[in-house]
Amino acid sequence: MTDLDKHNRMANAVRFLSIDAVQKANSGHPGLPMGAADIATVLFTRFLRFDPTEPKWADRDRFVLSAGHGSMLLYSLLHLTGYEDFTLDELKNFRQLGARTAGHPEYGHGGGIETTTGPLGQGLANAVGMAMTERMLQAEFGEDLVNHHTYALVGDGCLMEGISQEAISLAGHLKLNKLIVLWDDNGISIDGAISLSDSTDQPARFKACGWETVNVDGHNPSQIATAIEAARKSDRPTLIACKTTIGYGSPNKAGKNSAHGSPLGVDEIKITREALGWTDEPFEIPADIRDAWRIAGLRAAQANTEWAKRFEAADAETRAEFERRQRGDLPSALTDAIRTLKAKHVSDMPSLATRKASEVALEAINAAVPETIGGSADLTGSNNTRTKDMKAITPDDFSGRFVHWGIREHGMAAAMNGMALHGGVIPYSGTFMVFTDYCRPAIRLSALMGIRVIYVMTHDSIGLGEDGPTHQPVEHLAALRAIPNLLVLRPADATETAECWQIALENRNGPSVLALTRQNLAAFRAQLEEKNLCGNGAYEVCSCDDEAKVTLFATGSEVEIAMAAHAQLTEDGIPARVVSVPSFELFKKQSDDYRASIIGTAPVKIAIEAGIEMGWSRFIGDDGLFVGMDSFGASGPYKELYEHFGITAEVAVSKAKARLEALETTTEE
Amino acid sequence: MTDLDKHNRMANAVRFLSIDAVQKANSGHPGLPMGAADIATVLFTRFLRFDPTEPKWADRDRFVLSAGHGSMLLYSLLHLTGYEDFTLDELKNFRQLGARTAGHPEYGHGGGIETTTGPLGQGLANAVGMAMTERMLQAEFGEDLVNHHTYALVGDGCLMEGISQEAISLAGHLKLNKLIVLWDDNGISIDGAISLSDSTDQPARFKACGWETVNVDGHNPSQIATAIEAARKSDRPTLIACKTTIGYGSPNKAGKNSAHGSPLGVDEIKITREALGWTDEPFEIPADIRDAWRIAGLRAAQANTEWAKRFEAADAETRAEFERRQRGDLPSALTDAIRTLKAKHVSDMPSLATRKASEVALEAINAAVPETIGGSADLTGSNNTRTKDMKAITPDDFSGRFVHWGIREHGMAAAMNGMALHGGVIPYSGTFMVFTDYCRPAIRLSALMGIRVIYVMTHDSIGLGEDGPTHQPVEHLAALRAIPNLLVLRPADATETAECWQIALENRNGPSVLALTRQNLAAFRAQLEEKNLCGNGAYEVCSCDDEAKVTLFATGSEVEIAMAAHAQLTEDGIPARVVSVPSFELFKKQSDDYRASIIGTAPVKIAIEAGIEMGWSRFIGDDGLFVGMDSFGASGPYKELYEHFGITAEVAVSKAKARLEALETTTEE
Repeated sequence: MTDLDKHNRMANAVRFLSIDAVQKANSGHPGLPMGAADIATVLFTRFLRFDPTEPKWADRDRFVLSAGHGSMLLYSLLHLTGYEDFTLDELKNFRQLGARTAGHPEYGHGGGIETTTGPLGQGLANAVGMAMTERMLQAEFGEDLVNHHTYALVGDGCLMEGISQEAISLAGHLKLNKLIVLWDDNGISIDGAISLSDSTDQPARFKACGWETVNVDGHNPSQIATAIEAARKSDRPTLIACKTTIGYGSPNKAGKNSAHGSPLGVDEIKITREALGWTDEPFEIPADIRDAWRIAGLRAAQANTEWAKRFEAADAETRAEFERRQRGDLPSALTDAIRTLKAKHVSDMPSLATRKASEVALEAINAAVPETIGGSADLTGSNNTRTKDMKAITPDDFSGRFVHWGIREHGMAAAMNGMALHGGVIPYSGTFMVFTDYCRPAIRLSALMGIRVIYVMTHDSIGLGEDGPTHQPVEHLAALRAIPNLLVLRPADATETAECWQIALENRNGPSVLALTRQNLAAFRAQLEEKNLCGNGAYEVCSCDDEAKVTLFATGSEVEIAMAAHAQLTEDGIPARVVSVPSFELFKKQSDDYRASIIGTAPVKIAIEAGIEMGWSRFIGDDGLFVGMDSFGASGPYKELYEHFGITAEVAVSKAKARLEALETTTEE
Repeated sequence: MTDLDKHNRMANAVRFLSIDAVQKANSGHPGLPMGAADIATVLFTRFLRFDPTEPKWADRDRFVLSAGHGSMLLYSLLHLTGYEDFTLDELKNFRQLGARTAGHPEYGHGGGIETTTGPLGQGLANAVGMAMTERMLQAEFGEDLVNHHTYALVGDGCLMEGISQEAISLAGHLKLNKLIVLWDDNGISIDGAISLSDSTDQPARFKACGWETVNVDGHNPSQIATAIEAARKSDRPTLIACKTTIGYGSPNKAGKNSAHGSPLGVDEIKITREALGWTDEPFEIPADIRDAWRIAGLRAAQANTEWAKRFEAADAETRAEFERRQRGDLPSALTDAIRTLKAKHVSDMPSLATRKASEVALEAINAAVPETIGGSADLTGSNNTRTKDMKAITPDDFSGRFVHWGIREHGMAAAMNGMALHGGVIPYSGTFMVFTDYCRPAIRLSALMGIRVIYVMTHDSIGLGEDGPTHQPVEHLAALRAIPNLLVLRPADATETAECWQIALENRNGPSVLALTRQNLAAFRAQLEEKNLCGNGAYEVCSCDDEAKVTLFATGSEVEIAMAAHAQLTEDGIPARVVSVPSFELFKKQSDDYRASIIGTAPVKIAIEAGIEMGWSRFIGDDGLFVGMDSFGASGPYKELYEHFGITAEVAVSKAKARLEALETTTEE
């Protein structure tokens, strides 16, 4: 058997596992695994450094299947190279409820799945974040401990998505030379030929963004290998454009969109077996080929053994720090740092925009937590995410901890996912909150994957003023609260901001959004509490001696409006209380008793938030009063906007009184 | 005065109106108007065909200020060329509440504002949609009636945003040679030099996408003019890269990011006046320059006079159709077409996926409404948006009515905005509903602008099955309902789908989303109703003779689950009713009486929707029962997923019974 024969048979093993699993599921995408099997076989057998017995080995090469619909390619490779999570039974269970082998690769479903992909372009941007993290951790821990490549397999769809431009232009700018992108250039999309909708010269585009590019026959293993070798030596990221045939090997479907997204069918599979000389039954792999794949897995794992020796040779302190970072544990210094900060705030009672309070918090946090990586999508001075000692990374120096993401919100969010997935760092970065819309597909994936990414979203309401409705979030708090497993935090003063930062950092299994104001807010937390009150989701900030007739719920900048309303009601002899609600999600997690006590029994419940009402019924009921927005905002000085849209203490008081009167009238009747 | 002197003084008029308005507002962006004044002056005085007295003239050239923060550039130009909406008082009122001169250009605030811009990159994609529409309408109505250019002024931010790639690759593919993009290449972003975050060779990128490109000195009027002349003759779209100095003329701030987003300040304005030789007081324009600008406006308007003659020469039928299309009135044939369709459905009672029912509706609609333009983001066979007689447009033939948008959801949505803004067409296009997240910034702008764009979003729940959580909308109905002025329609059978299409088409002042299933749904509307029942937002589909103890509310695919639960409850002797809720927004608009009658008085209210609960309290109260999702979905056959997540008639029945029992126990106590 020549090397080429062996390669072909190894690649065919991937092809037929994929073909057969899709057929058995009667659902899925055979075209990509068939077309990209040669590329993947070269990569996994000759280059990729990974350890099937230790999938989380810190210095492994990362492989991202950005074209996630080709999931069977990945599952086949993981199975063949010896990842125990991907047994033959799992492959046979493709796309069934509860299987590790979901329709698209799902992070957490098994070792070797580096990220959840499927929404196109995301994986490519994840890979950029991973490659950045490698550079930054290498700058910190040295090449003995951190020295690996990031590979991404992308399809035409990934490259047509706008996010790809954000990802590749950033990667090119940063000269991420250890990032290697393999483009499955099959010229086919779901609707037919790519030429139906696109004529882009992709290599020329990548070159324009500072990449090395090379074109190869994606079914020629030696061309592929030569290209990867060259890419590994490049001083820039490399695009390897691999000309492939979708559904390679299928006599009737190869090169056609019919190969993309449905099973080949029994008859076509039969003749495909004949065409490729594959005589084995479904899910059966010849022993020699199975062995060859296992050996490839073992060989790839050699690098881990060597790495382990280098790791053992490192000094104890470095090892401990490296391991802590890998585990994702926070340094113990954080707790004290937050406590000191809170003590200072309750003593100073500063009037600060919460974005500024966030900067103050970050000064303390970044000093205590060396793994935070800050950034901004070109709004550094507005998002207040760069602390004094933070140096920005540059193409020539990755020892910094701040990223100028450029005007690339979506790419930023997806690259932050890649950073968190890589491990060893905690990414946080900012933009204006209205642009959570631009980031949304990536935020959803942070939540779906359950990874610690912190979104610092400033200018969180009409309070930003003159920039007007295009820049004013109105529906965004609700729309973010709608995303499962996303923690939305809207602090109301400096102390709450410090507490919310602590919560976000400690929220290991999901992303957090910090919604922060442009405008100043007076501190109201006057007492140092050991407990993180924001951790309850909602808590009372103003009470009354008598039984409350009115409870005012508010978040962020509207807490001070609620407190002013409270003062007015109190003066008018109406017992009232104020509840600050920094997080709906955390409140939901509290005990029934706690929740009942916070919601209280006041006959009038009123919520104040400079956003839409959706979601507030949990606090105020479906007949509660709401002071907020029900339309887009407007351009003007922010205090006038609050007046114009009726988000004021006066409106709250008058609504509360009118309701009280109505209730009393009803009772009297 | 030489031509150059005159040009400079005319450009300086734009500069100082911008400088002074920003200073007076104490807020805004002087840098771009100062830097791009020369480009804009050349364009508006020598090339752009527009009529200040008839801003909506159908065949005007379109000018899109994609870099919307430079709004004062546009307002200054509109003022100087004679648009009555932009008086000097309006300019003095820049960024004040109620002014036409909002912080960013807001569509509808005055003649000459072609689109709302500010969120970067959107305007560029709008321009692509406008240029496409010009080509398509020209193919239909001939060059005598339709023959204009589309110009967009873009900044570095627009080009860094991913959406720009979607827009330019599509424009290049389609060879939109009447699209001319002027890039204000000032090398500065908010954080500082562009080189902090980007090294892209933009012209090379555009070339890779099939564009003509040319580099000019953006302060040299003859270079700019030569480039525009050449661009107007090109057979491809053209990027004119104009090297400019941000804040041009300001001795201390020119070329710096400090010129970008805040007033220059009194002192700096003084020396800028000196540097540019501008001796006039704030908001004062020398008479000769004011005249020169007015003459430019009059000259530009000549083209309208000539067009009007050509229009008068057209035959009466063409004129009438052209005018109807411009007004946005629907053809009268639509009503009959929908009626016939409904009659057929109530007779056939088909079992169809609503995406398929949508295709059936579109067959009727597209025959009756010649202005619809369909499309899909590479999911044509899944979205069912292409009807039998629809030819796809190609770079060489724009006589079709279908667009293969490619895998460009965001660009598609923004270009549809451009189509609707252009006028004469009604764009509708599809993708999977989960990818409304990719489109979201553009959907928000459709809603903010109040324009008729129809989003056909299929595969609208876990009902899509095996593709898994990355493809399954869960929070999307809620997140879309959160957007002000967006109509979200989720029909439950073929008749409802026809009605919802009618509603979307008749919704002239806002966008609509149709949420459609992948899976088949049985028809339940058995009687032909003249009235569009979906137009009520919610209506009763199953009633009971006795007073109802349970009301089941549901939408789309869950209506049949509600009906099965209703059957079970009825069998068990529990009077129940079912309400179908195709649209929250339309229901909200009904009379108090109607709403009260639909919500009813049943002690148990239960909502069934394969999404999150957020927003349902309006129907079921805060203590209502909910059968739906509270997490991401999973990969598996869809019927198993419905069982797994407990979205079944059995669960609904058992929850309803448990609640009834609990209530009866309470009452007995």
